[in-house]
Amino acid sequence: MELMRSRGYLPAILLGLIFCAGVFGQTPSPTPLLYSEKTLTDLRRVQEAALGGRYAYEQAGYLSNNIGARLSGSAGAARAVEYVAAEMRRLGLEVHLQKVMVPHWVRGEERGELVGWDGMPAGSRQSIVLTALGGSIATPDDGLTGEIVVVKDFNELNALGRDKVAGKIVMFNYKFDTDLQASGYGGAAYGQAVAYRFNGAAAAGRLGAIAVLVRSAGGSQNRLAHTGLMGYVDGVTKIPAAAVTYEDAERIAWLARTGKVTVHLTITPKTLPAVESYNVIADLKGSEKPDEVVIVSGHLDSWDLGQGAIDDAAGVAASMAVPAILKGLKLTPKRTIRFIAWMDEEQGGSGSQAYGEAEKVNTANHFAAIEADLGASRPVGFNFAGRPEALPYFAPLSNILREQGAGLSQRQQGTGADTDVLTRRGVPSFAPWFDQRTYFMYHHTAADTFDKIDPQELAKVTSLVSVLAYGLANLEQPIPR
Amino acid sequence: MELMRSRGYLPAILLGLIFCAGVFGQTPSPTPLLYSEKTLTDLRRVQEAALGGRYAYEQAGYLSNNIGARLSGSAGAARAVEYVAAEMRRLGLEVHLQKVMVPHWVRGEERGELVGWDGMPAGSRQSIVLTALGGSIATPDDGLTGEIVVVKDFNELNALGRDKVAGKIVMFNYKFDTDLQASGYGGAAYGQAVAYRFNGAAAAGRLGAIAVLVRSAGGSQNRLAHTGLMGYVDGVTKIPAAAVTYEDAERIAWLARTGKVTVHLTITPKTLPAVESYNVIADLKGSEKPDEVVIVSGHLDSWDLGQGAIDDAAGVAASMAVPAILKGLKLTPKRTIRFIAWMDEEQGGSGSQAYGEAEKVNTANHFAAIEADLGASRPVGFNFAGRPEALPYFAPLSNILREQGAGLSQRQQGTGADTDVLTRRGVPSFAPWFDQRTYFMYHHTAADTFDKIDPQELAKVTSLVSVLAYGLANLEQPIPR
Repeated sequence: MELMRSRGYLPAILLGLIFCAGVFGQTPSPTPLLYSEKTLTDLRRVQEAALGGRYAYEQAGYLSNNIGARLSGSAGAARAVEYVAAEMRRLGLEVHLQKVMVPHWVRGEERGELVGWDGMPAGSRQSIVLTALGGSIATPDDGLTGEIVVVKDFNELNALGRDKVAGKIVMFNYKFDTDLQASGYGGAAYGQAVAYRFNGAAAAGRLGAIAVLVRSAGGSQNRLAHTGLMGYVDGVTKIPAAAVTYEDAERIAWLARTGKVTVHLTITPKTLPAVESYNVIADLKGSEKPDEVVIVSGHLDSWDLGQGAIDDAAGVAASMAVPAILKGLKLTPKRTIRFIAWMDEEQGGSGSQAYGEAEKVNTANHFAAIEADLGASRPVGFNFAGRPEALPYFAPLSNILREQGAGLSQRQQGTGADTDVLTRRGVPSFAPWFDQRTYFMYHHTAADTFDKIDPQELAKVTSLVSVLAYGLANLEQPIPR
Repeated sequence: MELMRSRGYLPAILLGLIFCAGVFGQTPSPTPLLYSEKTLTDLRRVQEAALGGRYAYEQAGYLSNNIGARLSGSAGAARAVEYVAAEMRRLGLEVHLQKVMVPHWVRGEERGELVGWDGMPAGSRQSIVLTALGGSIATPDDGLTGEIVVVKDFNELNALGRDKVAGKIVMFNYKFDTDLQASGYGGAAYGQAVAYRFNGAAAAGRLGAIAVLVRSAGGSQNRLAHTGLMGYVDGVTKIPAAAVTYEDAERIAWLARTGKVTVHLTITPKTLPAVESYNVIADLKGSEKPDEVVIVSGHLDSWDLGQGAIDDAAGVAASMAVPAILKGLKLTPKRTIRFIAWMDEEQGGSGSQAYGEAEKVNTANHFAAIEADLGASRPVGFNFAGRPEALPYFAPLSNILREQGAGLSQRQQGTGADTDVLTRRGVPSFAPWFDQRTYFMYHHTAADTFDKIDPQELAKVTSLVSVLAYGLANLEQPIPR
């Protein structure tokens, strides 16, 4: 999961909360018929099949454990495209591999060492756990050595100025708000912290720093470094960028209170030429309005430190389950349900951009779009991006979902990085509204592994996505847009 | 913290619980005077000073952050000896560095890779997070490759027999009981799991395995490998031994369900000649019975992956605070309070053995011994090893400790690896009785870092240790033994 790039890393989820308009009660349907009696009955069958099924869990396991990490441009990503396409064909869907050129950034060696500090045991070098940020340039092969300048945030850095920063390594010690996370607003905490990961190198490079370290933009307190995309700015010297763990940031800040802290940093990632890859698109053709499309999706690429299990094998697997469940129940939607496994959500969104470009003339036929990309914890309902007067159209779906504890809905500015291109064109879009208390403890770290997915919770995600997709595909009215 | 080696890695804590005899109520003192009114008043001042003080926290911070890891034989351990001795001298204590020859095992490179499995993306190698176990021999420098045999426990291994094991890499997938940990019995869960870490190499080597992997003997689910001591058995071929993380064990077990799993393993630790090191012993001389000694202690060495903060900078720091607090309050104990920072608790206990040897003729003068070596979480009371009829002698101390929520006491077989040599000679011994819900999530991993110590909780440990030490040093009666 990445925030919506097109809005320049604003804390979109936080804004979303401010602008949200919740529908928490059992809202009577507007006068025109929204869902036929048969649709409502079928939706309950879909829900039951999803809650009782293991298909999504097995798929998430295969993607996570058997295929493993799926960094854009990697062998894992290519294998995942093949696998998902084959599985969709096996289910009897029409599969289209949509070509997309993706970045090919490859992690190399990475090593951090404290080499000078107050109290240092003679001759000792002690390791710092860190990881290169996605897109970072390399240090020299034998690393670089520099004194650390610890700052809390951009303001503190800028107040120091070039004199105190040039030639040094800046460490942004901006604290991920774990209380906010514990309260359920992990996404908001991420929105605050991620600015340093994305923009830290440019801010420090502008003042002549030789490298930047960023305190991990995540809630882990288990010596886990958090990777993710960073960006350079034209005209500013590029410097190597890495994330240090919460623990190492705390230690460096402690040591810097009483003396100079010197670090040796080695990261050797490479940016190789762009690689041909694919969005996997598979249509379950609608019986009445086959040209109108309801997208159900997750993103197939992942970061490379873990397995990309919660980010986002879970979302792909829950979406794969939609046609699997409908086929199993011999249900054909009125509109086409289009499964998409997006490529390259994490490193620039080239997959969703390519789709947007190809479908530019076809916006009106995109009836709705769903993306699941915030893990596999229990959903409490769904987020919706679109016109406020549309929200009551989905109340009958919420009434069904309430039986599994997912009856809430709220309006937000966006629903995901990949749906964003459609949302901005007025296509109503949806995302599961997740319990966010644990997602950012593992997201983008080596601990994003299959064991973090609870089969029961993933079944609830699957059910939510299936009920939404089939409900929208069978909605008797157009959605106001 | 290590279990008591002398009892051959029995789950001692579990046994302790079975044999415990709790004193949970406010027990009236036996007729003879136990503590003078002045002692009781002074104990409350000691408690107040400990609960309000930051000395232990700052010391734990210096040991963890400034000095860092303190593996026996390392520069860190040597620096820590120097530092603690100087600090004890600064407090005005008589310091004795007791020579002890310690093992000098040095971690090298360590790398695990899946190189063959069902579904493997072509040409892909994927990393396994692992760490060499303390004392393990190395693989060849360029590693070794083998098929994995997954077994749950020793029984499953032995049922397979030599035919199915020889030439392969055995993975013990024995699950650390996280429910037991969550219930407060982390030590018991550790006691069960650690048998595989310690004895796994011998069990697998006996059947011709070429290496052994052990699922981490800890409660972390954050891709953290758990190191710790392992042992070889005379006459059984030594094989390299490493711990894989919970996540990697889960993945390997998943993959082994449907196909052959092949792993490339590289660990290059070295066992160098034994090194001279020291127990730091510092006496705060008693005013009335200076020859009678109450030991207050923690162990100064640590594992090398983290900082040894909870294991056991916290125990050393809480113990250092005892003389600091008494000096601050200008209180002189009747008996001598002897601070000891033990060397080499983790790799064989050579420090406590050397002390035991030196003090063999002096057992009767050892009035009591305390060791704090189970972290820095809130103590709920204390454990006692000694005669059951002695327990009421400490009830007035429990009454004072109850005001900080630490009023429980229970009798156990042992109180710590370092006090064990004294306990077995009949010296009454004590240890804080800790909340064990989190200790084994970090213990022996890279996440055993200073941030895991909460200053308020460490103050409670310090208070408990101080009240016990000063109370025992001023007890008006001999303890039945």
